[in-house]
Amino acid sequence: MEHGEHLAAIDLGSNSFHMVVARQVHGEIQILDGLSEKVQLGAGLDKDNRLDADTQERGLECLGRFAQRITGIPRGSVRVVGTNTLRQARNAREFIARAEDVLGHDIEIVAGREEARLIYLGVAHTLADDAGQRLVVDIGGGSTELIIGERFEPSETESLHMGCVSFAKRFFPEGALTEKAFDRAVTAARQEVLSIHANYRRIGWVQSVGASGTIKAISQVCVENGWCESGITLDALKKARKKVLKAESLERLSLKGLREDRVPIFPSGLAILYGIFEQLGLEQMEVSSGALREGLLYDLLGRFGHEDVRDRSIQALMNRHHVERSQAERVCDTAMALLKQVASEWGLAGEDMADSLRWAALLHELGLAVSHSQFHKHGAYLITNSDLPGFSRQEQQAVAVLVRGHRRKVPLSALEDVPEDEREPLLRLCLVLRIAARLHHARCDEAIPDIGLTAVERKLTLSFPAGWLEEHPLTLADLEQEQEYFQQAGCELNLS
Amino acid sequence: MEHGEHLAAIDLGSNSFHMVVARQVHGEIQILDGLSEKVQLGAGLDKDNRLDADTQERGLECLGRFAQRITGIPRGSVRVVGTNTLRQARNAREFIARAEDVLGHDIEIVAGREEARLIYLGVAHTLADDAGQRLVVDIGGGSTELIIGERFEPSETESLHMGCVSFAKRFFPEGALTEKAFDRAVTAARQEVLSIHANYRRIGWVQSVGASGTIKAISQVCVENGWCESGITLDALKKARKKVLKAESLERLSLKGLREDRVPIFPSGLAILYGIFEQLGLEQMEVSSGALREGLLYDLLGRFGHEDVRDRSIQALMNRHHVERSQAERVCDTAMALLKQVASEWGLAGEDMADSLRWAALLHELGLAVSHSQFHKHGAYLITNSDLPGFSRQEQQAVAVLVRGHRRKVPLSALEDVPEDEREPLLRLCLVLRIAARLHHARCDEAIPDIGLTAVERKLTLSFPAGWLEEHPLTLADLEQEQEYFQQAGCELNLS
Repeated sequence: MEHGEHLAAIDLGSNSFHMVVARQVHGEIQILDGLSEKVQLGAGLDKDNRLDADTQERGLECLGRFAQRITGIPRGSVRVVGTNTLRQARNAREFIARAEDVLGHDIEIVAGREEARLIYLGVAHTLADDAGQRLVVDIGGGSTELIIGERFEPSETESLHMGCVSFAKRFFPEGALTEKAFDRAVTAARQEVLSIHANYRRIGWVQSVGASGTIKAISQVCVENGWCESGITLDALKKARKKVLKAESLERLSLKGLREDRVPIFPSGLAILYGIFEQLGLEQMEVSSGALREGLLYDLLGRFGHEDVRDRSIQALMNRHHVERSQAERVCDTAMALLKQVASEWGLAGEDMADSLRWAALLHELGLAVSHSQFHKHGAYLITNSDLPGFSRQEQQAVAVLVRGHRRKVPLSALEDVPEDEREPLLRLCLVLRIAARLHHARCDEAIPDIGLTAVERKLTLSFPAGWLEEHPLTLADLEQEQEYFQQAGCELNLS
Repeated sequence: MEHGEHLAAIDLGSNSFHMVVARQVHGEIQILDGLSEKVQLGAGLDKDNRLDADTQERGLECLGRFAQRITGIPRGSVRVVGTNTLRQARNAREFIARAEDVLGHDIEIVAGREEARLIYLGVAHTLADDAGQRLVVDIGGGSTELIIGERFEPSETESLHMGCVSFAKRFFPEGALTEKAFDRAVTAARQEVLSIHANYRRIGWVQSVGASGTIKAISQVCVENGWCESGITLDALKKARKKVLKAESLERLSLKGLREDRVPIFPSGLAILYGIFEQLGLEQMEVSSGALREGLLYDLLGRFGHEDVRDRSIQALMNRHHVERSQAERVCDTAMALLKQVASEWGLAGEDMADSLRWAALLHELGLAVSHSQFHKHGAYLITNSDLPGFSRQEQQAVAVLVRGHRRKVPLSALEDVPEDEREPLLRLCLVLRIAARLHHARCDEAIPDIGLTAVERKLTLSFPAGWLEEHPLTLADLEQEQEYFQQAGCELNLS
């Protein structure tokens, strides 16, 4: 696939049809457009498992709109998949033929395991490349995928016959939200999970991650109501269950953070997740924005090798904004060497500290892509607002704060936006980065000599080989200016 | 010169030494670093026009710091020029030999006319490429350049023997700010200008532009004190004169917007500019950020052809952020065609209106370089904060507002940040851009049919060939959504 070429992925899900259009920019995927329509294909299956005519029409109209968007993208660059409802519908072939006509592209019905593999691929691209098994859960309209994998390799891929659309029809057909109906749905979900339960528990996992619209909606409700801080916890699920039952009926169900069009499938999705939590003994779950359609894009690109997603994100950002690599690496090397000397005294020995400093050093000149004036601020803006697969919001913010604070005044006010316990470590990392950047102001390949750094509380002492500073008057002037900035921030920098 | 290569320009001025370091990115200059030190070389000339030892030391120490910064940049990529003080100093040769030793690069003493040419080149790169003569004024420490030129071609290049450092020594030697001394300085300045006065008035100009630290400082004082809105006016100069005289002495001189280190040369600079305004009959002056050192950079690049600076800035921004050109041009063409149909009815017939819309259309997807989510906001951020040579702040803001408003809610609040009389025209341009972008949502080369657009007040009617909308269901759905956005903004969009 060539630079600039467009590609698209379409997911004909049981609840919604999704399309994502992207293009390749320097080997990276740049999302151009995302369209979603709630077709509710799953709800259109009649007793005989046939898609009714209205539903087919709804689906074809949606595809007509999608089709206009992808006119001109060549065949090999568009992948369209149908999932559970199309696996089940007895008249799927007829619908697919008409749909292919409308779209001008072939449609594959993927098996549950393949769907699970693609979901895992989409999710893995959003997660840090930590070692250790992870459990990925995706609740769809007609099926639910549970995958165990490590890094980019799924080892267990299962697709269970339960989904928020089918469960809504089965357990809440008239919209009554009784405790009995909810518990029956939970039990049904637990029974489904039971079939894989022993195997999955035996393999185990260190992290559980949820994907899909249903799980994102549940997380949003939990967080906006203050039931948990991020992701989903068992405790928050219990509170959500209580609220849902209190509403007594779908018509009266209204929760902070819940979109109206999601109401009809919220209780059933919640019951399924509840059952999964109970049956697999989960206490909490992170939420990923990756999904089947992202997996399809990466699959089209042929990209599923082992790699550190966060490092790739940083490299991609550097490429996209033409960061001068030699300078970024010089500052990075020096920053890491300085950190080593003060890490234990300053309580910065964690690997996450080293990571944050490393990424910030690599990106400290990012904002030059916008303007030299205030480039530290532009860099922080770009880091805050870019898609950085693999990074949590907090990690992204930490890197942005470090870049923001690497020159000019030490931004004590920006530090106040981060959680209290991270402020002092970030301030200290920031001081290390400032010194490293100053030492390389001359941007040349001449090796920096062995520079000693010692720290006591907020007091740093830099020691140079005799005579070196005198021979490098710009560095001396820079560091003298830096002493003033340190002082304004309640810190001290000594030179010896 | 190759992509990524560094280049540097150093200006050994009579008041300050300046250095700017840049690199080439896709044929554009990206400023990496700017250093300025107030060496006051001019103040170090003794009665015999010899640079005293202290001043030489100060100069060499400054160059030592500069030298460290440019280690490794090859000879042909660094240009160092000395101006008036070094033209005058009888021991300049001795100082230059020592300075070349410190810098490791040759130093040229440029003649006044060459200095004027380079200043014009630096300034021309910051101005719109409008036809018509312009007068450019640069008040240095030891000399003042007055140039007349059109676009990139200077026709008259004069350098006068007056500067803010030499005039400070001559007219305010003890720091007393008497009316008599000030008026003598003004008269001396007028006498200098007298020599070129007749010729310059005969050629004439349609625009006058000031450059240099002195003129920027005067403008900043005038604007921050509310004496004029931007640039410098004759009236504001009169107010500044009054304030300066009121202080009675340099020690007591303190003005809003005036940096302390500028105080000693502020009255003399003001008197020179005052004399120029009076002698040439100026009423107002714009201020440019271009200067000798930028001229040196462009001279190094060999770039001084005739070109529209603003168009080049837009193209450079598109390149830097990988804007997909085909889509940008499609939307631009359609937007211009739609504008044509409503321009007279809607009072948008001015060329500036067409320019703003054209630039905004070319840049509407700029923010995709950051993220697809909220990309209209990212685009506006990049446009607001990028260096766009040739653009005034107002023009830049107008383009940013249009990009900000080209999708999602019509941002009535963002429109409130622009001057009142521009709001309605910008809102209307914004509506045209929205429609053009919607029509090309499908991003394909299929020609858009002849689409009629009529406007009555805030009511627009789009007419399509019969059947076309039905065949393009995505466009229909998009425009229906757009109708809602229009309504929320107190406008109306009809389809026929």
